[in-house]
Amino acid sequence: MSTVIRRGTIVTASDIVRADVLIEDGIVTSIAANLPAAGHDVVDATGCYLFPGGIDPHTHLDMPFGGTVTADDFRTGTIAAAFGGTTTVIDFALHAKGQSLHDAVRIWHGKAEGKAAVDYSFHVMIGDLREDVMREIPDVVEREGVSSFKVFMAYKGTFQVDDETLFRTLRMAADVGALVQVHAENGDVIDVLVREALAKGQIEPRYHALTRPPEAEGEATARAIRLAEIAKAPLYVVHVTCAQAADAISDARKRGLPIYGETCPQYLVCDIGDYDRPGFEGAKYVMSPPLREKWHQDVLWGKLANLELQAFGSDQCSFNFKGQKELGLHNFSLIPNGAPTIEDRMAILYHFGVNEGRIGLNKFVALTSTNVAKLFGLFPRKGTIAVGSDADIVIWDPEVERTITAETHHMNVDYNPFEGMRVKGKPRKVFLRGHLIVDGDSFLGEPGMGSFLRAGRFTPVNL
Amino acid sequence: MSTVIRRGTIVTASDIVRADVLIEDGIVTSIAANLPAAGHDVVDATGCYLFPGGIDPHTHLDMPFGGTVTADDFRTGTIAAAFGGTTTVIDFALHAKGQSLHDAVRIWHGKAEGKAAVDYSFHVMIGDLREDVMREIPDVVEREGVSSFKVFMAYKGTFQVDDETLFRTLRMAADVGALVQVHAENGDVIDVLVREALAKGQIEPRYHALTRPPEAEGEATARAIRLAEIAKAPLYVVHVTCAQAADAISDARKRGLPIYGETCPQYLVCDIGDYDRPGFEGAKYVMSPPLREKWHQDVLWGKLANLELQAFGSDQCSFNFKGQKELGLHNFSLIPNGAPTIEDRMAILYHFGVNEGRIGLNKFVALTSTNVAKLFGLFPRKGTIAVGSDADIVIWDPEVERTITAETHHMNVDYNPFEGMRVKGKPRKVFLRGHLIVDGDSFLGEPGMGSFLRAGRFTPVNL
Amino acid sequence: MSTVIRRGTIVTASDIVRADVLIEDGIVTSIAANLPAAGHDVVDATGCYLFPGGIDPHTHLDMPFGGTVTADDFRTGTIAAAFGGTTTVIDFALHAKGQSLHDAVRIWHGKAEGKAAVDYSFHVMIGDLREDVMREIPDVVEREGVSSFKVFMAYKGTFQVDDETLFRTLRMAADVGALVQVHAENGDVIDVLVREALAKGQIEPRYHALTRPPEAEGEATARAIRLAEIAKAPLYVVHVTCAQAADAISDARKRGLPIYGETCPQYLVCDIGDYDRPGFEGAKYVMSPPLREKWHQDVLWGKLANLELQAFGSDQCSFNFKGQKELGLHNFSLIPNGAPTIEDRMAILYHFGVNEGRIGLNKFVALTSTNVAKLFGLFPRKGTIAVGSDADIVIWDPEVERTITAETHHMNVDYNPFEGMRVKGKPRKVFLRGHLIVDGDSFLGEPGMGSFLRAGRFTPVNL
Amino acid sequence: MSTVIRRGTIVTASDIVRADVLIEDGIVTSIAANLPAAGHDVVDATGCYLFPGGIDPHTHLDMPFGGTVTADDFRTGTIAAAFGGTTTVIDFALHAKGQSLHDAVRIWHGKAEGKAAVDYSFHVMIGDLREDVMREIPDVVEREGVSSFKVFMAYKGTFQVDDETLFRTLRMAADVGALVQVHAENGDVIDVLVREALAKGQIEPRYHALTRPPEAEGEATARAIRLAEIAKAPLYVVHVTCAQAADAISDARKRGLPIYGETCPQYLVCDIGDYDRPGFEGAKYVMSPPLREKWHQDVLWGKLANLELQAFGSDQCSFNFKGQKELGLHNFSLIPNGAPTIEDRMAILYHFGVNEGRIGLNKFVALTSTNVAKLFGLFPRKGTIAVGSDADIVIWDPEVERTITAETHHMNVDYNPFEGMRVKGKPRKVFLRGHLIVDGDSFLGEPGMGSFLRAGRFTPVNL
Ligand SMILES: [Zn+2]
Ligand SMILES: [Zn+2]
Ligand SMILES: [Zn+2]
Ligand SMILES: [Zn+2]
Ligand SMILES: [Zn+2]
Ligand SMILES: [Zn+2]
Ligand SMILES: [Zn+2]
Ligand SMILES: [Zn+2]
Repeated sequence: MSTVIRRGTIVTASDIVRADVLIEDGIVTSIAANLPAAGHDVVDATGCYLFPGGIDPHTHLDMPFGGTVTADDFRTGTIAAAFGGTTTVIDFALHAKGQSLHDAVRIWHGKAEGKAAVDYSFHVMIGDLREDVMREIPDVVEREGVSSFKVFMAYKGTFQVDDETLFRTLRMAADVGALVQVHAENGDVIDVLVREALAKGQIEPRYHALTRPPEAEGEATARAIRLAEIAKAPLYVVHVTCAQAADAISDARKRGLPIYGETCPQYLVCDIGDYDRPGFEGAKYVMSPPLREKWHQDVLWGKLANLELQAFGSDQCSFNFKGQKELGLHNFSLIPNGAPTIEDRMAILYHFGVNEGRIGLNKFVALTSTNVAKLFGLFPRKGTIAVGSDADIVIWDPEVERTITAETHHMNVDYNPFEGMRVKGKPRKVFLRGHLIVDGDSFLGEPGMGSFLRAGRFTPVNL
Repeated sequence: MSTVIRRGTIVTASDIVRADVLIEDGIVTSIAANLPAAGHDVVDATGCYLFPGGIDPHTHLDMPFGGTVTADDFRTGTIAAAFGGTTTVIDFALHAKGQSLHDAVRIWHGKAEGKAAVDYSFHVMIGDLREDVMREIPDVVEREGVSSFKVFMAYKGTFQVDDETLFRTLRMAADVGALVQVHAENGDVIDVLVREALAKGQIEPRYHALTRPPEAEGEATARAIRLAEIAKAPLYVVHVTCAQAADAISDARKRGLPIYGETCPQYLVCDIGDYDRPGFEGAKYVMSPPLREKWHQDVLWGKLANLELQAFGSDQCSFNFKGQKELGLHNFSLIPNGAPTIEDRMAILYHFGVNEGRIGLNKFVALTSTNVAKLFGLFPRKGTIAVGSDADIVIWDPEVERTITAETHHMNVDYNPFEGMRVKGKPRKVFLRGHLIVDGDSFLGEPGMGSFLRAGRFTPVNL
Repeated sequence: MSTVIRRGTIVTASDIVRADVLIEDGIVTSIAANLPAAGHDVVDATGCYLFPGGIDPHTHLDMPFGGTVTADDFRTGTIAAAFGGTTTVIDFALHAKGQSLHDAVRIWHGKAEGKAAVDYSFHVMIGDLREDVMREIPDVVEREGVSSFKVFMAYKGTFQVDDETLFRTLRMAADVGALVQVHAENGDVIDVLVREALAKGQIEPRYHALTRPPEAEGEATARAIRLAEIAKAPLYVVHVTCAQAADAISDARKRGLPIYGETCPQYLVCDIGDYDRPGFEGAKYVMSPPLREKWHQDVLWGKLANLELQAFGSDQCSFNFKGQKELGLHNFSLIPNGAPTIEDRMAILYHFGVNEGRIGLNKFVALTSTNVAKLFGLFPRKGTIAVGSDADIVIWDPEVERTITAETHHMNVDYNPFEGMRVKGKPRKVFLRGHLIVDGDSFLGEPGMGSFLRAGRFTPVNL
Repeated sequence: MSTVIRRGTIVTASDIVRADVLIEDGIVTSIAANLPAAGHDVVDATGCYLFPGGIDPHTHLDMPFGGTVTADDFRTGTIAAAFGGTTTVIDFALHAKGQSLHDAVRIWHGKAEGKAAVDYSFHVMIGDLREDVMREIPDVVEREGVSSFKVFMAYKGTFQVDDETLFRTLRMAADVGALVQVHAENGDVIDVLVREALAKGQIEPRYHALTRPPEAEGEATARAIRLAEIAKAPLYVVHVTCAQAADAISDARKRGLPIYGETCPQYLVCDIGDYDRPGFEGAKYVMSPPLREKWHQDVLWGKLANLELQAFGSDQCSFNFKGQKELGLHNFSLIPNGAPTIEDRMAILYHFGVNEGRIGLNKFVALTSTNVAKLFGLFPRKGTIAVGSDADIVIWDPEVERTITAETHHMNVDYNPFEGMRVKGKPRKVFLRGHLIVDGDSFLGEPGMGSFLRAGRFTPVNL
């Protein structure tokens, strides 16, 4: 099987190239000015960009949470991802109390195998950092091909770890070439504020935001950075939402430290005002950290423009408004946290970023794909369009306009947080390892065709 | 004429690719897993990296200075550049009092034509920012293909401009898509300190450094940034040497401003102690800004590692120790400023950066070539190895060790500031638009084969 | 002549003391729990604070400006000052082109003598920093008793000095124990913006603010600080209006540098919106630097609360709305700069600061009197209520409310920028060296009774 | 009983006054130019300063620690304090597991009563922040007269509290007018580092410093500040030792937050090199946080000069070298933490600060007495020389030189960390509430004459 994509404009994190691409056996084998069509399937990409397939560094598929489970599993979630131009997801394997890390990875393989329609890799979200779990880490990196470990500085009483655990994880990670990710909010502070709010009868969704102030995110981010500095370890901060946190990352980078930050589409185009939507609609936006005051959006855009934040994830974590979000109808703290964003991640960044002149095409690719691949050990197999790399290619039509809506999206959930937004720029075709899996509005792939990707070790110098 | 380079490892600012490269008519036309040799010259690059030809954003060739002229002209300077792996230089056309900008460009064309052995472009170093000169700028961008303009905040009484001029230049530049460069030192302060030192009989080279404190560089950098902020203009700070200045740039980038900084090899591996070399040897290191205390080197490396500084220039400005540097034997302020660095720029960054684990290969390419091409309107013709780009390619042998010495260097000057340093990594072959111009220790090109490159306009979003 | 003030509460920069005060021959000679009344005039201060007479570090009385002269001279200005609780003013002696510093001081003595109703001292506002003028400085400090020198970084073409002059003045000042004051705005930038605005027909008062952005103040402040740092000199920044400038001062103090800042009442309670008052009313608020967006007020209050700003001046510079401000009716740049603030300086700080809980009584005294005396060489004769100090005492009734209005104020000018503001707290009686000069609404002093105060030298350690 | 002190120079936090002082019934009743001697004891203070009696905000007397107890109790400790010019100590009442706060206060009263030779007040050092303990706080403030509460961010497993506890304490304190003090080091990080060091056989005193890096202090300081910011509470950081922590405080003050910092004499004149003293001598300097690299000293002096740090405590916590410090002969972590510094606190600050030109006399008084009184609710009874205040007065002879040595000091401990330092400036006489308790080298007071001082509530505006 071989395919030639002709007359498109290839965009990588550094280049913009008018050239044809030859795909053989799922691999890009040639990029050339004019490739002969003979003997190959021929795809015309005139007027389109060729982006490396998006890599979403932050998804939660088929994840249990507070007595329910996310609305999207690996099947629906990855199909939606594919429609949005994402051909790899890095999902968080949840490590529960009492489990070994290997258990967690094994369980997550069970969720993904036979279902995933795009390639996937795992972070482990450490839920119980016992001594024996700590000692498993080198083996997980070596044998499981999982080299990133998320720890929580929030969710007191469940996932939250203390600083000793975070610090020891950082040192262990530095030793074995793994990258620690932190959910950086001060869970202790939040816990107090939430209890107080509820005690005062403040039960509506808006109190979710008011009990998780940006200072609590800034504090935790700065703390994690200091701990990484002492541990001589790199650090990746997931879902940065506010000036306080993003500035802490910039301050660290100014000092030459290997600290990285990710933000997500919802923090760029939604804001704290969304919690005040009529009725219980605000619950659709309940996620952690919460949406912030609007001025933070400008700060985040400036950080993306200067690559002071390096990665762009969805934090996909979908719950239906009906039946799931409603669990918190009388208590915001019971609203399942998260939103369905996997499908529109790239469109949001493209439209509000590239189209509106805030970031360029190379940065769009760096943020949505290349940097993610480098940070999480998938590069150069993934994250670029280059000879020898997997032929994960999005033919992106920059002229197509559409309105985002739950009525047409492919996620298995009853609302879309970007409902009604008009965006320009949409995948025309999406290839996964040379297979055409999305063609316009048709899904041509199939559940189970996604492969697990072993992640390589991380060293800052390679980023 | 066509050439295939086989079995090398292509490095771009984002990718590292094992592939063959086909060059036709001076252009890269194909990058592929296996290219047939038939009908082409074949070059084997086994064990080597293929870097895009270096672009030196900061050279002073054939430049008059204080009654003398630089030791290297476009012939010797560009041949030396080629030996070091640099295939494009952006030289500063000196705009003298009374001249128009067009005059300056014309004169510089005269110096380069028929002599340059690599391609070249020009910045204009504005020496006399009269009202009519300001009005020339749009035309220079449009017709001359020069879109970067350097103004001096130092050299009082000669090049130094006042803030009005700097500010107006920034606004003009923002309007027409040009990029302002600043030599950022507070010339007023320096002028006072120099006069005082001389009055006290402090005439030795070390007083060059002591009369140009890093705070004076930090001040001017911060000032230029604020002016750019008010003018809503991008800004490029040349030869950043110290924490004070580099931190000011980081602070601006943290706020999302399009501010860029360049550093140079001498600031990474030489330091203020070099001024105390026996006899008059310190004069070899007299340049502006001066070398700093050693701890600044670590700061600069950290900035390069995080791309808080984006470009790497030589600030090549060579004067012979005998006869030229000696003009200041009894007065450090008469020592011609500058050093011969064009040839070893890439070797220094490669050895002390890549080999010693401070930066990775992609950053090496970004700093020495890609970012420079993007900042100065030469991309994508220059700055990358990609289909459609000029076949400026360095086959870099990472295993060859050598000792830097004036005895073997190709610059037309009697000393080398890096004398005696042992470095590993050296160009095996250098191609300029497909022509093999350097082959080991032989120069196969010829003066005059370098072409002038028209620079495109600058917009921050493209970087 | 002797007076006992009984049953008041004495407030100094550090203490709050219930005690009686004995004044003999204009000097405080005893502070005691119970002083016998016999043989003394007795004043009852029950329910009142005794503040040291205010010292206004920043007034412009009888000052020519742009073809006109300030509405208040030393007679009316100091009487108004006295009504507000201020018993010493430090006026800026204007040093004009061609004059010696001694000339300036002599002329200013001529303006003050026989007119001043409160004590006074001078800063010299250097207008022409020629070589011979620079050399006069030590003598002016020694013989004239003037030890503070203001230089302008704005007002291009008239007062503005270049960095060389500022730097040399800082060094000279450091040598002789003088304190340099800067008006910190980047005059070059402002000059360009003003000309552009006028060229576009933007002539209304609001363009005064828009052509003097806070970044231009932040820049100049940071620059002056860096120059002082290199010069190893202290520095006093007059009329700080914005976060950008005040933060630069905090950054310097964080590093242990002897940098001081002053703000003024108008920047705490007026804002950029005042320029949009109907008709030409905005002209009343035309001063330099201009009023800022409202959020800067909170920043300034926080700085005062933490003594990150150390002094509080009026920047009194009054021009009548009719006939004077109107000079700029068709061109904001011709509006005489300044406002009448000498009378209400203390009331504004007291009401909005002390009454509204932003600062305490000790800080009120430090800002309005003690720190000023220490900074400008008048301490301990002035600036405190202590044995041996001049009996400049304000009996302040914290319970009296009044509305500020030009109808009742004592300044010789036809408007008040604080018109209509309701404030609580007012001098009941004011003593100057033991003389009761204000008693309620009656002025009992007389023009000419104010004495010139020789300023001592400044050393940071004494502050 | 009445006393007149004649011809001294009274120094307060703001004033320097040549005057006589009358003391009646232990209170200052008059400060006057010339007080009649008749009927009073007369003390001549010619050539001397009169300082308000020092207030040491940070002592640990009779405190159990790691199986031993401090060498000085309230008798020996307060007599030594008096010899050094300190007339009030604020000791930390240790609240042990299972106790109520009232228990802790009661036990501490038991230790102090009948023994203390100077006045005293208490902080409570909370050891077990149970729910019921939290609820005790208002009552402790109201009824016990204790309004400052120290919590530990270090000493994992014993005193260390989690962030929830710190945060809730801050909020409670803000509500009731109390001030929270933090020992700011990240105990989790330290715990890991200590265990690792010991596991590697690194048992010498120097590892005490190496396992408690300044970044761990900077982190905890910044965290406590953020928590205070969210809680809208003031915060006092005890024993600040390094740039990282002091800068965090400055950053907070720059933003107008009510954050305060204390440093101690040992951090100004001792450094990390002291741990390398021969034999086990380094153990004398084992305290937490540890001594730092020498460059931090300059940073701290700059902060004191600008009152970016506001208080100066001893952190007196004495253990004999023989028998006590030796407990850690084979394991640095078993060395009792602390040093004997109560006696020389003021002399060190005076000599190295005032005599060496780093701070002025007013700041000396502010740091050693006035600010402490204001921060901890003892003002104006204590902390100043003013009518109505307690006659706690030190007659300080600035000309007396002495060498600090354990041979002559009055602390009950066998070494002095400042051994051999030569200092100029010493109390000639010390009065406690009008009683002469120290006269040259004689102690004239007696154990038990010290009174407990109820602390008032804290509001930032009063500082
Ligand atoms: Zn999270
Ligand atoms: Zn998540
Ligand atoms: Zn230069
Ligand atoms: Zn140069
Ligand atoms: Zn001014
Ligand atoms: Zn003024
Ligand atoms: Zn402690
Ligand atoms: Zn302690």
